[in-house]
Amino acid sequence: MGYFDAASAAPLHPVARQALQVSLDEGWADPSRLYREGRRARLLLDAAREAAAEAVGCRPDELVFTPSGTRAVHSGIAGALAGRRRIGTHLIVSTVEHSSVLHSAEMHEAGGGTVTRVGVDRAGAVTAEAYAAALRPDTALACLQSANHEVGTEQPVAEVASVCRAAGVPLLVDAAQSLAWGPVEGGWSLLAASAHKWGGPSGVGLLVVRKGVRFAPQGPVDERESGRAAGFENIPAIVAAAASLRAVQAEAAQEAVRLRELTERIRARVPGSVPDVEVVGDPVRRLPGVVTFSCLYVDGETLLHELDRVGFSVSSGSSCTSSTLTPSHVLRAMGVLSEGNVRVSLPPGTAEEDVERFLDVLPGAVSAVREQLGAPVTATAATAREDALVVDSLGKRCPIPVIELAKVIGDVPVGGTVRVLSDDEAARLDIPAWCEMRGQEYVGEEPAERGSAYVVRRLS
Amino acid sequence: MGYFDAASAAPLHPVARQALQVSLDEGWADPSRLYREGRRARLLLDAAREAAAEAVGCRPDELVFTPSGTRAVHSGIAGALAGRRRIGTHLIVSTVEHSSVLHSAEMHEAGGGTVTRVGVDRAGAVTAEAYAAALRPDTALACLQSANHEVGTEQPVAEVASVCRAAGVPLLVDAAQSLAWGPVEGGWSLLAASAHKWGGPSGVGLLVVRKGVRFAPQGPVDERESGRAAGFENIPAIVAAAASLRAVQAEAAQEAVRLRELTERIRARVPGSVPDVEVVGDPVRRLPGVVTFSCLYVDGETLLHELDRVGFSVSSGSSCTSSTLTPSHVLRAMGVLSEGNVRVSLPPGTAEEDVERFLDVLPGAVSAVREQLGAPVTATAATAREDALVVDSLGKRCPIPVIELAKVIGDVPVGGTVRVLSDDEAARLDIPAWCEMRGQEYVGEEPAERGSAYVVRRLS
Repeated sequence: MGYFDAASAAPLHPVARQALQVSLDEGWADPSRLYREGRRARLLLDAAREAAAEAVGCRPDELVFTPSGTRAVHSGIAGALAGRRRIGTHLIVSTVEHSSVLHSAEMHEAGGGTVTRVGVDRAGAVTAEAYAAALRPDTALACLQSANHEVGTEQPVAEVASVCRAAGVPLLVDAAQSLAWGPVEGGWSLLAASAHKWGGPSGVGLLVVRKGVRFAPQGPVDERESGRAAGFENIPAIVAAAASLRAVQAEAAQEAVRLRELTERIRARVPGSVPDVEVVGDPVRRLPGVVTFSCLYVDGETLLHELDRVGFSVSSGSSCTSSTLTPSHVLRAMGVLSEGNVRVSLPPGTAEEDVERFLDVLPGAVSAVREQLGAPVTATAATAREDALVVDSLGKRCPIPVIELAKVIGDVPVGGTVRVLSDDEAARLDIPAWCEMRGQEYVGEEPAERGSAYVVRRLS
Repeated sequence: MGYFDAASAAPLHPVARQALQVSLDEGWADPSRLYREGRRARLLLDAAREAAAEAVGCRPDELVFTPSGTRAVHSGIAGALAGRRRIGTHLIVSTVEHSSVLHSAEMHEAGGGTVTRVGVDRAGAVTAEAYAAALRPDTALACLQSANHEVGTEQPVAEVASVCRAAGVPLLVDAAQSLAWGPVEGGWSLLAASAHKWGGPSGVGLLVVRKGVRFAPQGPVDERESGRAAGFENIPAIVAAAASLRAVQAEAAQEAVRLRELTERIRARVPGSVPDVEVVGDPVRRLPGVVTFSCLYVDGETLLHELDRVGFSVSSGSSCTSSTLTPSHVLRAMGVLSEGNVRVSLPPGTAEEDVERFLDVLPGAVSAVREQLGAPVTATAATAREDALVVDSLGKRCPIPVIELAKVIGDVPVGGTVRVLSDDEAARLDIPAWCEMRGQEYVGEEPAERGSAYVVRRLS
């Protein structure tokens, strides 16, 4: 069996489990109480804060525990924006941030603030220059992830932090994906992370606010966690989170090499064994355990089911997954193919055999889905019929519009165009991506009576 | 040893521990994922929601899990107020609510809303009439606890709910203290509670919003828990919380009788064994396990230490505790003595012997503290000196001003007055309370150069 979705949640680390067990007995009382049970709880909480701070590379009094990474991001952004309200209400984020950051930005806009969204290259990375260009005199805060959660690309955090620092703007780093691998380098001002990403229990996030950073906690007043995280402290889980963070960081250097080799195999071998695949994300500057690819003519949800059936748990940024009807904002921002998208994120300790078995079953799983959907096996050479062919894919969902395009392209004379009518959001991303993969020209999008017409010119 | 602070946090129930163990293995994955680990997590979450909803007496789709009771209150109040913004911005709370409610109300006021705070009687209870009088055409929400956390007094929730319902105003019930004993009666609209109060793990609260109640979640958008509780679900803790809620409710009827008998003993015997004690809270309409009393001439923090030394963990609403310099807002709202305040809240399963031992050691602990502070043993009959005596207690903290008043009252001729100068916040509450206990007349408070002068007339 292969659980290959560590970027979503990792199973509990043995150290976390052990720490949790012990502190269920010792850490249930209110740490603000003066009696023995309260004092014991306080000692555990203080020790966990020390340990977590050391792992992050900050002072213990700069770190508070929150109920989740999402809440750490929400509180961190809201508090930093409020703390610098006098300077202005301009916020900078990248287009590939986690939804917790992007939704915070939307709320900020709804409340009258302004937001600049910094784009990424085809590998999913921002540049320090783009952040520098986005900075304004009224910029209150900039946010950047340490590494992307969908494609694994590492961001130039230290460079962006120094650009922000030069402008006197605090940088909040969402370190959810990378903290297990080590502290975040550079002169960042705020940092958020989530314990269940590193094998800690659910229910614990952490928020670091460097000394000297203006910060005004939002929401009703609450005295716990320096006033930055309301509600009774979840001490057993906090102790487990801190213990497992230290444990995974201690194993990180060695495990990173091993996982990087395994994901490198996937990166190298999938394009050879599965036709019409695009591996996405930076090939070098990336998280050790994450590799993402998209398969033409494949419905992401069906592929996930097919892989689950043969024992592999992966996730997908395709539009065809049940939880959403639009393609992942990350793939969209990168401008890469979203259909048949698969993210493999290996938990520490993943066995080589499991990766090999995944590589063995993947081609069959993909071709089974393609067969089901009637995808073209090879581009058929057909006689020219007319100059401007129209494919009506209205009402059909990803990946059908692309499949129908692929089926007729052979009917188009070289130099001629085909219009694909589609009202599926994914087509806007996937038709240009198909053109790039196939060496055809994507002419552009035209409004149509329903949906849009995507115009493609046959080049070869 | 006696841990008598269950109203603050209860140790983990054995059922909770067992459920937690099992679901650490089964419930760590993301329940929104389609693969087997995700589906298993989803099943656990759904089952926990069903169980909790049954224990609360609501539909499963009306209940979401939050990271704490405090967060449930914060989100519930903010969402209900926003949902009825068109009707108005008037909020009603009682003066004895938990700080999470009162701090939400303060935030609402700071944002331009209006708040009516409904007072309580000397037993700590509101009346439905007072809520009825507070309702206005622009009332968006009313809040009332099911039972008070400091004195155990049960509130007339069903009556208040029906008054609110008649006016078309939703009532949010903070059921943190009572849910372990059974569902909250009456036609309430929203309900908040906290698992660590019923022997569940920390890190789980619940928020119920009845169908048909207008509710607009605040904060950044997040799809989890029906959009009402952002962040990755803490499923192992949620499963444990739901399991222990069912377990404690199943044991509730029998355990309530037993604990009520034990707290009745404390209520009855403390005033006989400890001089100058006021037992506070409703003697009949009260939580089974809570009893609260205040001891004249005693510093609450010192008494807590003394009791801790002899093996008992209790809490105090006195001003003299380390976490705060002002007396508990609950005791203040009730107008009862705050000095030397002790709350005993027995966890289910408390042994009779432990209560007996507490009753044995309490008188010694109180008199040790009084001796330390030089408190008067009996009121000394002294010769009259002058008509208007002044006691300068400036710079002295609770309970010293009251001790000094008690020492000089014998020097005041019957009918004469004494002025106590004090700049301690607690004096405002404790001097009138002392007068009531001693049968002397509290004339009133006068401004002074520093602090206030509290005027007392000797009647006997």
